[in-house]
Amino acid sequence: MRHFLSVADAGDINNLVEDALRLKARPDLNRRFAGKRLGLIFMNPSLRTRVSTQVAALNLGLDSIVLNTSGDSWQLEFAEGAVMDGNTVEHVKDAAPVLGSYFDILGIRTFPGLKNKEDDYAEKVLNAFVKYAGVPVMSLESATRHPLQSLADIITITEYALLQKIKRPKVVLMWAPHVKPLPQCVANSFSEWMNAWGGADFLIAHPEGYELDRAFTGEAKVIYIQEEALQDADFVYVKNWSSVSEYGKILPVEGNWMLTNEKLESAPEARIMHCLPVRRNLVLSDEILDSERSIVTAQAGNRVWSAQAVLSEILEDNF
Amino acid sequence: MRHFLSVADAGDINNLVEDALRLKARPDLNRRFAGKRLGLIFMNPSLRTRVSTQVAALNLGLDSIVLNTSGDSWQLEFAEGAVMDGNTVEHVKDAAPVLGSYFDILGIRTFPGLKNKEDDYAEKVLNAFVKYAGVPVMSLESATRHPLQSLADIITITEYALLQKIKRPKVVLMWAPHVKPLPQCVANSFSEWMNAWGGADFLIAHPEGYELDRAFTGEAKVIYIQEEALQDADFVYVKNWSSVSEYGKILPVEGNWMLTNEKLESAPEARIMHCLPVRRNLVLSDEILDSERSIVTAQAGNRVWSAQAVLSEILEDNF
Amino acid sequence: MRHFLSVADAGDINNLVEDALRLKARPDLNRRFAGKRLGLIFMNPSLRTRVSTQVAALNLGLDSIVLNTSGDSWQLEFAEGAVMDGNTVEHVKDAAPVLGSYFDILGIRTFPGLKNKEDDYAEKVLNAFVKYAGVPVMSLESATRHPLQSLADIITITEYALLQKIKRPKVVLMWAPHVKPLPQCVANSFSEWMNAWGGADFLIAHPEGYELDRAFTGEAKVIYIQEEALQDADFVYVKNWSSVSEYGKILPVEGNWMLTNEKLESAPEARIMHCLPVRRNLVLSDEILDSERSIVTAQAGNRVWSAQAVLSEILEDNF
Repeated sequence: MRHFLSVADAGDINNLVEDALRLKARPDLNRRFAGKRLGLIFMNPSLRTRVSTQVAALNLGLDSIVLNTSGDSWQLEFAEGAVMDGNTVEHVKDAAPVLGSYFDILGIRTFPGLKNKEDDYAEKVLNAFVKYAGVPVMSLESATRHPLQSLADIITITEYALLQKIKRPKVVLMWAPHVKPLPQCVANSFSEWMNAWGGADFLIAHPEGYELDRAFTGEAKVIYIQEEALQDADFVYVKNWSSVSEYGKILPVEGNWMLTNEKLESAPEARIMHCLPVRRNLVLSDEILDSERSIVTAQAGNRVWSAQAVLSEILEDNF
Repeated sequence: MRHFLSVADAGDINNLVEDALRLKARPDLNRRFAGKRLGLIFMNPSLRTRVSTQVAALNLGLDSIVLNTSGDSWQLEFAEGAVMDGNTVEHVKDAAPVLGSYFDILGIRTFPGLKNKEDDYAEKVLNAFVKYAGVPVMSLESATRHPLQSLADIITITEYALLQKIKRPKVVLMWAPHVKPLPQCVANSFSEWMNAWGGADFLIAHPEGYELDRAFTGEAKVIYIQEEALQDADFVYVKNWSSVSEYGKILPVEGNWMLTNEKLESAPEARIMHCLPVRRNLVLSDEILDSERSIVTAQAGNRVWSAQAVLSEILEDNF
Repeated sequence: MRHFLSVADAGDINNLVEDALRLKARPDLNRRFAGKRLGLIFMNPSLRTRVSTQVAALNLGLDSIVLNTSGDSWQLEFAEGAVMDGNTVEHVKDAAPVLGSYFDILGIRTFPGLKNKEDDYAEKVLNAFVKYAGVPVMSLESATRHPLQSLADIITITEYALLQKIKRPKVVLMWAPHVKPLPQCVANSFSEWMNAWGGADFLIAHPEGYELDRAFTGEAKVIYIQEEALQDADFVYVKNWSSVSEYGKILPVEGNWMLTNEKLESAPEARIMHCLPVRRNLVLSDEILDSERSIVTAQAGNRVWSAQAVLSEILEDNF
């Protein structure tokens, strides 16, 4: 069964990007599977992911039904052998196959707890659905990855590199400050997609203590000096994440890592990316977000074609 | 006007089961009423009921719109003559006809308060919608009944009896422990459907103090000794409910009524049912739920065909 | 770009009413724009507005997706230059263009805070979406106006005036008591629509201290004595609103302004309107709401045709 949980399920990334751009030009191109049913299960709130996936489903003629489980009293149990006399009301072993019987594809959104790395990185929620649902499962962001976002990111880089006639862009994933501890999933996922894609010179920049897990970043070059990393960059992907080594913590950082036009003087052509939502003047300054440099809206718009291309592949391979 | 509130609205149950199984074989069989509008009003949370009814609506080509009123600030008043200077913001006498003007059929989900039997058993919420909405009303579970569940239960028993070549199955409705006081509606409803159906030898097993209201169970045999009830059972429907006589209470019970393989030695062929969600190792053990005996997933899957058969009948009779 | 924020966007009101009545007679008349996408963003709870707009969308063949942002953790920032290190997680400058890229039309619902008149009457939420979304915006009720309601009100008056052969009806907007401070938007909006329409003799009745802002009521006559206002009225639109001068306050009122049959003796033919939800026996008595005088259900039903006529116009003008 073809799932979509990480870059390992992406096949040839350039093909997938081309599929997405073909769909962007002709949204109603592939309606062969019209009437198939997509269940979208949100264990955590979602705006862009939900809407872009629903729009992708509409374009494909799929019927989608959304389940917001965070607001409900529906607490799932994941532990094997649990005596369920507490707060959990249903075991994933019972819930997943039922949902699998109602839908042809399931999309699942879940966040890490950021308390215990081992727990989060085991991806027990997503894996339990894969194990028990009996239908293809698509990640709508999980504890450690956000593959639909990463694909949208590469679609966006491909488009702008073409537009600006850059053969092999220099792409920097750059840490930014935040007031809350955030997951590493966007950064992890972008790193493993960039590595698998290979279409860019990729490097990661962050203060000490914010090293990502090498299981995701592989051999990617890491730079601790922001100015050095920015030099001649074509794309700067700004994103906060909390510490991996001191798991889920916000560590003291020297200097202000918020990006400014001044810092970008050594990269005059750089396009600035962010997965949104972005806290202005904390993560990214108004002067950048309101300028032509920012391509965050285009990047969010590409979430539709990312989801649509992936849904198309899942449908082609499974039905 | 044809509503669907209890077994009294079911007509010939075997016909309804056959309709459901015909739709299961060909989900898109009856689309004559495509475009009719179904309003699904949830005064209490719902997962299986909501999704299975939405899927049934999709199969029939109906447009369905969900209203979750539990999460909103929309508190309905039901008392005649109430001076509404408190928490209720709209009277059902005003809300129901408006909803009736927006939809062709209304589905309503409501739970009992479990404080006062008379109040709950009067079914004032459901009856107020029947009285004031002006369109057919379908119960999506009410204070005292869950008819779409009961029909799915009988569809499931019919399928497995056929499969195992059982002419007249022995069906046991068996009480199980729980940590919270639960409604009697699933047990009430299953009892009255079993009585009306007549296709099985039906008995009810529970500890003393958990007697159901005879208005639902009729002449059904009640057994207080779990082992005795299980003897040669073909189907054991496990379900907790709170006390009726000491209304809404959890009473002390001698011994552990949780079903185990050991207890099932006298019923080696028995299939185990539960309406889900089920708390594992409290209501039903892992060893049973993870075994071939358990048909809970199939039972939940049949919720689609139950809803679709009922919607079909309501449409045929009213439009 | 054609938006729909107030009566200023309505064009010829009689034409719009005729369009609505044509659609009421033939709901599926205009499906030329089938497949366009409508995003419905609710920053505050909604029942009638949401459902009637979704039904209107279904009639037009539009795909609609609902976003309830009140229940989510999605707090928008509206202040220019804000350093977002507090509770807001996304700036409207970033959220609106993304939503605009997912949808062809956006509907927005937002309420006033009732703390500061200047803030509320600046309509910053609605105006920010108009400024940044890049697609037509339709008000689903805003801080100071409820134009889809006002259009439904005039459709209803037109229908009943025709039915009762009244050439130029006398229409009274009449304040009523309430236990909570309510917005002025329904009253504001109805006033400016009545003035712009000109098809009725319009007057406003309320206790002293409840004067509406003249920016909305214009030259409309205001009467402080309930009995005098009711004399020979053809339509009485009952509605509570909080004080404008002592902004958002409930002021002490002499006498009981709740409408009764007795008070209506001087207006024996008067039809009673209310936008719903209505608190019975506080705002309006049972004796009136349960009588033939009340046309509140018909009025709420016309919300569908109001929304459908407006959506049609927006589609015709923009696509």
